Amino acid sequence: MVWCSGWKLVSAVSDFGCLGLIGSGSMDLDVFKHHIKKCKIATNKPFGVNLPLYSKDVDAKIDIILQEGVKIVFTSAGNPKLYTKMLKKEGITVAHLISSEEQAIKSDAAGVDALVAEGYEAGGHNGHNETTTLCLIPAIRKITSKPLMAAGGIGTGQGMLSAMCLGADGVQIGTAFAVSDESSAHENFKLKVIQSKEGDTALALKSISPVRMMKNDFYNEVQKAEKEGVSVEEIKELIGIMGRSKKGIFDGDLIKGELEIGQVSAQMKKIRPCKEIIKEILNEYEENRIALSSDRYKYD
Amino acid sequence: MVWCSGWKLVSAVSDFGCLGLIGSGSMDLDVFKHHIKKCKIATNKPFGVNLPLYSKDVDAKIDIILQEGVKIVFTSAGNPKLYTKMLKKEGITVAHLISSEEQAIKSDAAGVDALVAEGYEAGGHNGHNETTTLCLIPAIRKITSKPLMAAGGIGTGQGMLSAMCLGADGVQIGTAFAVSDESSAHENFKLKVIQSKEGDTALALKSISPVRMMKNDFYNEVQKAEKEGVSVEEIKELIGIMGRSKKGIFDGDLIKGELEIGQVSAQMKKIRPCKEIIKEILNEYEENRIALSSDRYKYD
Repeated sequence: MVWCSGWKLVSAVSDFGCLGLIGSGSMDLDVFKHHIKKCKIATNKPFGVNLPLYSKDVDAKIDIILQEGVKIVFTSAGNPKLYTKMLKKEGITVAHLISSEEQAIKSDAAGVDALVAEGYEAGGHNGHNETTTLCLIPAIRKITSKPLMAAGGIGTGQGMLSAMCLGADGVQIGTAFAVSDESSAHENFKLKVIQSKEGDTALALKSISPVRMMKNDFYNEVQKAEKEGVSVEEIKELIGIMGRSKKGIFDGDLIKGELEIGQVSAQMKKIRPCKEIIKEILNEYEENRIALSSDRYKYD
Repeated sequence: MVWCSGWKLVSAVSDFGCLGLIGSGSMDLDVFKHHIKKCKIATNKPFGVNLPLYSKDVDAKIDIILQEGVKIVFTSAGNPKLYTKMLKKEGITVAHLISSEEQAIKSDAAGVDALVAEGYEAGGHNGHNETTTLCLIPAIRKITSKPLMAAGGIGTGQGMLSAMCLGADGVQIGTAFAVSDESSAHENFKLKVIQSKEGDTALALKSISPVRMMKNDFYNEVQKAEKEGVSVEEIKELIGIMGRSKKGIFDGDLIKGELEIGQVSAQMKKIRPCKEIIKEILNEYEENRIALSSDRYKYD
């Protein structure tokens, strides 16, 4: 949710009964602090922070989290051993994002309070195993009895129900909110996403760290570079440090920008307020849940 | 289901209330005819044939299907326009396997009776779009009102229920039956599959036609060849015409053989009779379906 999830989105999502997460990955320290402060004013509901552990400024961000009294942190992209204990000592609830059994075992051992298991269909940074949500959730459910949230490919009530069938206790939703009114993403990006169709995203940048994005000129450029076997350094230079995702998602350059989004983007058809998105997801979830108990679904 | 689905597996599956499909892809004409004849003796329940349309001997196989009076054909890997009309004229029910919206639209237009939508997690031949079952089923459900079966990543009752939540009318199961007692696969292969874990399969051979298989020496060999950019002809030579999948699945060479299997293999823990597999899937489906109607799953 880089360049999408600032205080506007987070406070809206939290206000309507979900848990909003500030996407700190694309924020420098001042911006991050600003968004937390604004969010505290905008909502009196709990909200959290998503904190990629590979960030150079992770320690400084943790300082801000502590100063500002944020009580929920979702860590990702790094070793859960490093910060979980310390964060928990400070009274913070810690969830860690994983994409494999191995990472789930490590997270469990690191003492996290909850896990988010994210499948291959997810947008943005992605795991190396390429295990899909449908196969990942049951595997992780067997490993941990901690609260387990499913992520990747879930942006509708049907998807949410499906994840619950697989043993999840809840879901983490990105793409559907990335195209909400309250998302900080550029209008061009939101329009591109809601006009997209099945097959329009792909997992790229596997030689560095896999990222799901829309197929555009930038995608073709990195695919070509990887095929030609250019060095990791050259590919990193091609991307710039967060440069291309900012260009695409925040500045709305649909050609040269990196358009990170999940496969479920093909099911998103409107730009609308979070309130409507949440209402529709929950209504669809309940409708389908009730329908499933009818005789039509009984096996005989 | 190459090298797995002969008359023993098919008749067992059909006997226990499912629809068994003879996997004709790995059979020459005599073997194919033999399996149909044996299957007709072994069960009086309906069964079908899976027919990859790219086969050189597809016309001869259709002749056998007609001669032997098989009434259900699942076509795959080819244009549904070519044979659907003719097969239907002969009173045959035709389902076509697709992995994208585009193929679903073409299949619908070709007049097939039903569709099988197969996601990225499926074993063996796979689509280019890499859309997962979780994202594919809702997309295809919007395109067609015809009976829709979900495939890829489904080998348990939970997985089946999950697919039904997404709008499927039924499921097609491969991997779970590939490791059944009645599967023609070699014992070595079955043991390898039930000992595997999350992350042990990958999609390879993308330069020819994507195939999901277990990661072994053969997989490493084709990955290396593709990375080095060798020609499609050289890769084809490396595989041999069905040679490597026979070596792996049927002859049990776990090193040099191509071990085609789905991601759900990590959830398979036993080699056992089809009857038990089916019973467990349906029981788990019903248990989870009923559990889902409880208040624990109600959103409030």
